Amino acid sequence: MSSEKRIPVAVLGATGSVGQRFIQLLANHPWFEVAEVVASDRSAGKKFSDATEWRMDANMPDGVRDLVVKDLDASLSSPIAFSALPGEAAGEVEARLAKAGHAVLSNASTYRMDEDVPLVIAEVNPEHVRGIERQKANRGWNGYIITNGNCTAITLSLSLKPLHAAFGIEAVVVSTMQAISGAGYPGVPSLDMVDNVIPFISTEEEKLAEEARKFLGSYDGSFVPADFAVSASCNRVAVRDGHTESVSIRLKRDVAPEEAIEAFESFRARPQELDLPSAPKQPVVVRHEKNRPQPILDRDTHGGMASVVGRIRPCPIMGLKYTVLGHNTIRGAAGASVLNAELLKAEGLLPG
Amino acid sequence: MSSEKRIPVAVLGATGSVGQRFIQLLANHPWFEVAEVVASDRSAGKKFSDATEWRMDANMPDGVRDLVVKDLDASLSSPIAFSALPGEAAGEVEARLAKAGHAVLSNASTYRMDEDVPLVIAEVNPEHVRGIERQKANRGWNGYIITNGNCTAITLSLSLKPLHAAFGIEAVVVSTMQAISGAGYPGVPSLDMVDNVIPFISTEEEKLAEEARKFLGSYDGSFVPADFAVSASCNRVAVRDGHTESVSIRLKRDVAPEEAIEAFESFRARPQELDLPSAPKQPVVVRHEKNRPQPILDRDTHGGMASVVGRIRPCPIMGLKYTVLGHNTIRGAAGASVLNAELLKAEGLLPG
Amino acid sequence: MSSEKRIPVAVLGATGSVGQRFIQLLANHPWFEVAEVVASDRSAGKKFSDATEWRMDANMPDGVRDLVVKDLDASLSSPIAFSALPGEAAGEVEARLAKAGHAVLSNASTYRMDEDVPLVIAEVNPEHVRGIERQKANRGWNGYIITNGNCTAITLSLSLKPLHAAFGIEAVVVSTMQAISGAGYPGVPSLDMVDNVIPFISTEEEKLAEEARKFLGSYDGSFVPADFAVSASCNRVAVRDGHTESVSIRLKRDVAPEEAIEAFESFRARPQELDLPSAPKQPVVVRHEKNRPQPILDRDTHGGMASVVGRIRPCPIMGLKYTVLGHNTIRGAAGASVLNAELLKAEGLLPG
Amino acid sequence: MSSEKRIPVAVLGATGSVGQRFIQLLANHPWFEVAEVVASDRSAGKKFSDATEWRMDANMPDGVRDLVVKDLDASLSSPIAFSALPGEAAGEVEARLAKAGHAVLSNASTYRMDEDVPLVIAEVNPEHVRGIERQKANRGWNGYIITNGNCTAITLSLSLKPLHAAFGIEAVVVSTMQAISGAGYPGVPSLDMVDNVIPFISTEEEKLAEEARKFLGSYDGSFVPADFAVSASCNRVAVRDGHTESVSIRLKRDVAPEEAIEAFESFRARPQELDLPSAPKQPVVVRHEKNRPQPILDRDTHGGMASVVGRIRPCPIMGLKYTVLGHNTIRGAAGASVLNAELLKAEGLLPG
Repeated sequence: MSSEKRIPVAVLGATGSVGQRFIQLLANHPWFEVAEVVASDRSAGKKFSDATEWRMDANMPDGVRDLVVKDLDASLSSPIAFSALPGEAAGEVEARLAKAGHAVLSNASTYRMDEDVPLVIAEVNPEHVRGIERQKANRGWNGYIITNGNCTAITLSLSLKPLHAAFGIEAVVVSTMQAISGAGYPGVPSLDMVDNVIPFISTEEEKLAEEARKFLGSYDGSFVPADFAVSASCNRVAVRDGHTESVSIRLKRDVAPEEAIEAFESFRARPQELDLPSAPKQPVVVRHEKNRPQPILDRDTHGGMASVVGRIRPCPIMGLKYTVLGHNTIRGAAGASVLNAELLKAEGLLPG
Repeated sequence: MSSEKRIPVAVLGATGSVGQRFIQLLANHPWFEVAEVVASDRSAGKKFSDATEWRMDANMPDGVRDLVVKDLDASLSSPIAFSALPGEAAGEVEARLAKAGHAVLSNASTYRMDEDVPLVIAEVNPEHVRGIERQKANRGWNGYIITNGNCTAITLSLSLKPLHAAFGIEAVVVSTMQAISGAGYPGVPSLDMVDNVIPFISTEEEKLAEEARKFLGSYDGSFVPADFAVSASCNRVAVRDGHTESVSIRLKRDVAPEEAIEAFESFRARPQELDLPSAPKQPVVVRHEKNRPQPILDRDTHGGMASVVGRIRPCPIMGLKYTVLGHNTIRGAAGASVLNAELLKAEGLLPG
Repeated sequence: MSSEKRIPVAVLGATGSVGQRFIQLLANHPWFEVAEVVASDRSAGKKFSDATEWRMDANMPDGVRDLVVKDLDASLSSPIAFSALPGEAAGEVEARLAKAGHAVLSNASTYRMDEDVPLVIAEVNPEHVRGIERQKANRGWNGYIITNGNCTAITLSLSLKPLHAAFGIEAVVVSTMQAISGAGYPGVPSLDMVDNVIPFISTEEEKLAEEARKFLGSYDGSFVPADFAVSASCNRVAVRDGHTESVSIRLKRDVAPEEAIEAFESFRARPQELDLPSAPKQPVVVRHEKNRPQPILDRDTHGGMASVVGRIRPCPIMGLKYTVLGHNTIRGAAGASVLNAELLKAEGLLPG
Repeated sequence: MSSEKRIPVAVLGATGSVGQRFIQLLANHPWFEVAEVVASDRSAGKKFSDATEWRMDANMPDGVRDLVVKDLDASLSSPIAFSALPGEAAGEVEARLAKAGHAVLSNASTYRMDEDVPLVIAEVNPEHVRGIERQKANRGWNGYIITNGNCTAITLSLSLKPLHAAFGIEAVVVSTMQAISGAGYPGVPSLDMVDNVIPFISTEEEKLAEEARKFLGSYDGSFVPADFAVSASCNRVAVRDGHTESVSIRLKRDVAPEEAIEAFESFRARPQELDLPSAPKQPVVVRHEKNRPQPILDRDTHGGMASVVGRIRPCPIMGLKYTVLGHNTIRGAAGASVLNAELLKAEGLLPG
């Protein structure tokens, strides 16, 4: 597609943390152009630059500054709507837009586990996007909703995929150290984070388990979750961006660390084949130093779109263990949706 | 014992982090009195207050300010020597003092796994102190060395003990989030900790596994390690004090969270029976809130001498999981040695 | 006063951060006993232990656990009410209680600058408490309100007092690095504090200037502010407790650092003369090390009730400069009120 | 200059923090190409990728990976040597290279205040580079040394320049909150930074004062410092990159905030005229929000090459006050040297 005619897209919840990340990632995108920004009544009617306390480290892109924020009930003209809406608002708004014919790429958890809604990581289960046909038929919608998962689940699942493909997974024990940006803004109070760890994140452990199974499951008219168990312990630590996860895994056979490393490093998938604009060159990057991955050094690998793995070693109980890190607001949120939209475009599945 | 005649004790490595913690914990101790401070050549010959950059949050106790620092080769007159020496110095100095008749209570890892050296948590394996007889015979020493373990291992093992006693442990998967004070001063560079996690601590995972098995093993003339497996993933986070650990555990039978809670809360041991001065009222404290334990709120429980447990819930893979927190420089280091010394005193095993 | 009959006190806003600090400081107080706790409708009617998410590092004192929280409109029976109410609630509630005959010791900013309301630091301007007579007459109240100042102003003013008394102050330029606890809970978002500084705190610079002048002013039937200028730049940094302030000061004559140190160290005031229970032995403590005071090492000096000063050196522009640190929720808030109440008691100015 | 023939440059101290920043900034530079890397004996002889623990957030540039590290005594072939050497090594090595005909662009403090060594910020005192003629004559050197200043001094001086030019400066009181990267790696221990402020940085206050005066002074055959006074209080805070400074300033006449803003925003200098590759479009950027600049949001403005100013308001004592922020390892170190080299190139002052 030539850059002279980019597809207009809308960003829902554009003034919030994930919404701003969408805006940032879509600035200069070769295929898409932010044409509409949508937010709650408080912001609607204002210029985007007036409505938004911009918190990204790069400046607000010029192209969006003068867009007038639309309210959540507005009709949209863009074929694609990226949704960074909070759960409570997402349910109704996303359904209305999908019904009206838009492709809704959602970060909200509302529809993720619905039996006719694809939950997609472009490298892990690209074939699940086919589920939109059944969804449209079921619901009588002209458009559709495709969701990406919880940030912690995406980071983990991207690292599980090559292992599952090569060896088969039986069980995963994972303990996370999650970044504060995962809770949005204002999110976690600083009194809870300076000199502290919070060993609990509401509903996170459940999401991680069920989403990982859906990502790694199959689609053949319906979504069949993978049949391994996941046990998660989710913790919040004083890191801005980047979820770090200690993983112990039982595979269907004994797997030496070298075999796992080979599986991680050789892994390529549909987005790499299609050379999609936001696809990381390597979806899973292995660091061979003894003390990596680290958030500060590794979260921006391949533009924040890779899962970075290290410390691959035997686990005396589960068989294998490693550490995985992913950028939670890029690969774990906005970037995942953008890559999904690119996949849909390349596969000819966009509306209109 | 009346307070008018306290037992003189020496602190080895007194100017460092753990050494200062010993000094602080022994100020106003009803049984012991710091009479000698020992440190490297750089400090020897100076007044303690001049030799030491004091870094505790309470002021340096008056009683030690004017003590003249002895060098590592000095003969000591105190029957008890608390050692906060680094590994490289500990080997020779501790052996010389033990040979000369002192009870050496050591934090160093040098002798921990020796087959004739007790590795003791006063609540977990108090009977192991009997091993000093064989040690003295073996080595021809007039005194002896008793070690306490790695800070992470102590925190974990204290929580494992009631479960092992009540149900029997088969396997433990643990992921830690460890405080920076565990690495001493200067220790971890701030550039490694601000906005970061380090997923590696040298030799920590190995120590945690082998020490936990020795603590929970038996003594019957020799030390027989417990026969469960431990798999650890050790991480450093931006917390000053207090190691937090996510634990998944397989017991010999299915154990409901309520049963585990009952085991934790009812656990009392020899130090509690003997009402030792530094013994926590409860060795394992259960927090029932959904988001506890937290370092900032829980590390000082019972003067930093308890392991604090929370989030006890089923693990779909191992059976049970929970979070445990302990103060790494109190219960995990100096406080553990002091309690061990109190136990030896109460059991009549001190020299002289 | 014997401990068998302690004066009952109420704590207003008892469930919040400063309220909890009051509860903690008043546990085991020799003169006062918390008999009533008051909070907003959301908490009223519940047991204190159920209504409060306790966030102090020591456990909730047993004596308050079963107190039933009263609502803001309740009549109180305690002669003293310590107020940790937020500004919006303080205005009405404090006035009602003062009118009804209570001594209200307030942390709120509402009445601080009123011309008939004493703004008191017990060591700085104890004579200002006499202003309650005029207040009662003016307002027709049976009781009265005495306020303590903003945390940053108290820390600074305590260090200014000995200099003003000895040399006379002409001007003060101060730049602060303030702790997050000063903003309460949830307060400052962690995304604003991890790897960051916020160079702005709403209305803080104005309060610091006007309160410092009132503290150091005179009372002779009316409050006359001191006539020096204060210019403040207020910043928030990632510190839990303890405000650090860089101060440059112009005095009425050239003052050598040694003279200033002598003034700081020899300073004693009314609370020290009266040996009040919460009075720090030295109101201003000088650290002579080149890199002190530091929050982590110095904020708890004399139980958090001292201003700790260091780096006293010439300023080529203003004459003298130094760094001062104070514990913002103890000396800067709850502790200041408690000490004021002790002063009132000792001076025979309590109601009833 | 065409990009096909870039000027080879050497980086001295290439394996350290500032050295790595040089490597990063020079990757893809249109004029310069890193051809030689120099470090201490410990690294010499190894491939750069083996000798260096790379700590930048972007990957090590491919072009330098295979360069063999030269030792400090090596002869170099590149006309330009960027020096990130520590003070102790810089003295001898830089002098030898300058004598041998190289243009040495130094970050070290060794020669900064020498009477025949230019201390240059390209926008502040570009005319000072003319001082190399006298230096070469004086010292009998074929090449020369040009230094850039201390990171804190550069950030401040860049903001002072437009005010000095427009209004004349009489005195500056500044209190800093400096990032940990300013102390290099390992640098500041994390135990000194988590939940803490360090109110002291060795020799920083002196450097800030004398360097600011030299930057803003004149050159007419010799360097005449500007005749205003600077009084600094330097503090270290838990920020990775970006020094924040609270400034109070007395100008030769009353200046309204609007006038100062106009002076800041309209300021352009020689690097902007010459359109040098590393020149920020605006050397001083004004943020108009009430709570800016902040390190996390503003340090990367114009690639980290701008001083970002905010909170411009009256100071009741000095006349005017504001907050200024600069990226200490880009504009405050490596980036400043690179821009100086570009200036030398554009002015035709490079050797050879």
